[in-house]
Amino acid sequence: MTYAKAGVDINKVQAAHRVLARKLETTFRTRRGKIGHPIFPIGHYAGLINMGHGQVLSLHVDSVGTKVIIAQMMKKYDTIGIDCVAMCANDLICTGSEPIAFLDYLALSKPNPALVDEVAEGIVEGAKQAGMAVVGGEMAIVPDLLSEVGIDLVGMATGVCSKEDLVLGDKVRKGDVVIGVASSGIHSNGLTLARKVLLRNHRLRERIPELGRSIGEELLEPTRIYVKPVIELLRRIEVHGLAHITGGAFTKLGRVLSQANLGAALDNSPPMPGIFRLIKKEGRISEREMHRTFNMGVGFIVICPQDEADRVIRLFKKNSQQAFRLGRAERKPGIRVNGVRVN
Amino acid sequence: MTYAKAGVDINKVQAAHRVLARKLETTFRTRRGKIGHPIFPIGHYAGLINMGHGQVLSLHVDSVGTKVIIAQMMKKYDTIGIDCVAMCANDLICTGSEPIAFLDYLALSKPNPALVDEVAEGIVEGAKQAGMAVVGGEMAIVPDLLSEVGIDLVGMATGVCSKEDLVLGDKVRKGDVVIGVASSGIHSNGLTLARKVLLRNHRLRERIPELGRSIGEELLEPTRIYVKPVIELLRRIEVHGLAHITGGAFTKLGRVLSQANLGAALDNSPPMPGIFRLIKKEGRISEREMHRTFNMGVGFIVICPQDEADRVIRLFKKNSQQAFRLGRAERKPGIRVNGVRVN
Repeated sequence: MTYAKAGVDINKVQAAHRVLARKLETTFRTRRGKIGHPIFPIGHYAGLINMGHGQVLSLHVDSVGTKVIIAQMMKKYDTIGIDCVAMCANDLICTGSEPIAFLDYLALSKPNPALVDEVAEGIVEGAKQAGMAVVGGEMAIVPDLLSEVGIDLVGMATGVCSKEDLVLGDKVRKGDVVIGVASSGIHSNGLTLARKVLLRNHRLRERIPELGRSIGEELLEPTRIYVKPVIELLRRIEVHGLAHITGGAFTKLGRVLSQANLGAALDNSPPMPGIFRLIKKEGRISEREMHRTFNMGVGFIVICPQDEADRVIRLFKKNSQQAFRLGRAERKPGIRVNGVRVN
Repeated sequence: MTYAKAGVDINKVQAAHRVLARKLETTFRTRRGKIGHPIFPIGHYAGLINMGHGQVLSLHVDSVGTKVIIAQMMKKYDTIGIDCVAMCANDLICTGSEPIAFLDYLALSKPNPALVDEVAEGIVEGAKQAGMAVVGGEMAIVPDLLSEVGIDLVGMATGVCSKEDLVLGDKVRKGDVVIGVASSGIHSNGLTLARKVLLRNHRLRERIPELGRSIGEELLEPTRIYVKPVIELLRRIEVHGLAHITGGAFTKLGRVLSQANLGAALDNSPPMPGIFRLIKKEGRISEREMHRTFNMGVGFIVICPQDEADRVIRLFKKNSQQAFRLGRAERKPGIRVNGVRVN
């Protein structure tokens, strides 16, 4: 099984993204010499625009994807809002920005105040964890656009950064340490493949001994929000690169390292969490495909000089988050996990 | 026929919005004393946050709604991007803000580079008209979330304003003139009702003499973008209130006038454009329901002191946009069109 066969071809999606980006960037000239001029091409973790006074605004949009299907099947909508905030806020901080404001787009088949209330609960919880104010949103009742799942949830986030404090990956040096921070489970990516594989042989509410709970509960576990430790990190320790492991999984690290024309060898993967072992086994999915689709227990990556690595790991530990050395930045291009190139 | 019967009950939607807003506003305290603190409750045309240096950021998210269904039926996707930008940018300017940056969320059933290219063409055209840089976006391939229409298109916009230049409606005075600016057609609201009414008796490609073209062509006409004349207006003329006539149509004016505890009597409606005459007749829809659902030829409203009205109208004319006196702000609450209260 591959993610492409489940309907999502990462290569095709990324190629289409590049074509789209070049076209959209022709609009940059409309802001030339004005407030709001972009300072970086499309394709990093956030759009970056110059606000004057040395201030840069970072803007990002992301969706929960098909995790809403698990919510609908489990009739439990009070945590997908956390995922929605996490998908945006964890991306924003990869530019060194502090997330400040959030908006949501909630598409529904029909007005459903109880469901909206549940979704809002998660958004509020996520926003508090990320230190963001939710300043608006759009609820669209669009019965004809949605499948019988009846819901889509998207977030838009704004962050701010001093221009000189941006972290874009260009400062990564050969030999820098790649540190992984533990994920809380599958987060919000690869759900389409996970569903196709796991629901072939199991019911969603079936308790799986290796997981210690049902598949549905495991897949619904909210995405960890890394904002607080990362903001603390940015204030106190020299950081060269940051990567949120989301769509495309470890291929995302390539986006950061390419700024410095470097690659990375990740040879110390953490033990594979139960949910990924289960998906890998039941879907007979290759190691490479797993690392191109799932976070494999690593939700966030920090790249720092060798002599800062221990301090970085301790800082996450102090914030009750487990961090570990994954590998090193190398001259050789590409991201290699246990010797296999994944991007 | 009413919009509620077509699946969208404006009263229910607005009530749900209010409950949601109060809940989301509990997150405002996370930014207390920090950059990015909200300066206005949720519910105006944009979320407003304080960026320091006297600068306010305005943030808004909006979707094209079911206009994508017309695009799909007509196999023509190159203008819905203009609608997407218009829905966001026309809302942002209602706070006195200058739109600066745009992101899109495009949900698709399957990767389709040709379709994406067409959509991007409209987004680029809209962004250029609105003077915004498109700094990113998300393309989600979510086959299981979408109906057979296979597409949803959402925009997120950022604007900027000096704090003292915000236009929120609180400065509107009794006797101020309500000026309407011509729409380019149905824009991006009421499409669900329009489709249900018109496609009962007609095919989409049927040429309608009163419209001078087919129903599909008429419904796909891109939403007019009012940014350029309105920004010029804000720089040169005293403006007390601004309203984009979108979802909920003329009830939206209530949002602005309520800031000054005033209402409005609109007794000089422009001649009803052909598309609205057709929908009204074939759907046997009341005048009141029409004004709660459709722009009725008025896409944007400016409220200004009596002695500025002629200058406002001339400024739009200079920008090739037709503007006309619709009525007056009054002590009596509510929005009345030809004596009928619509909100």
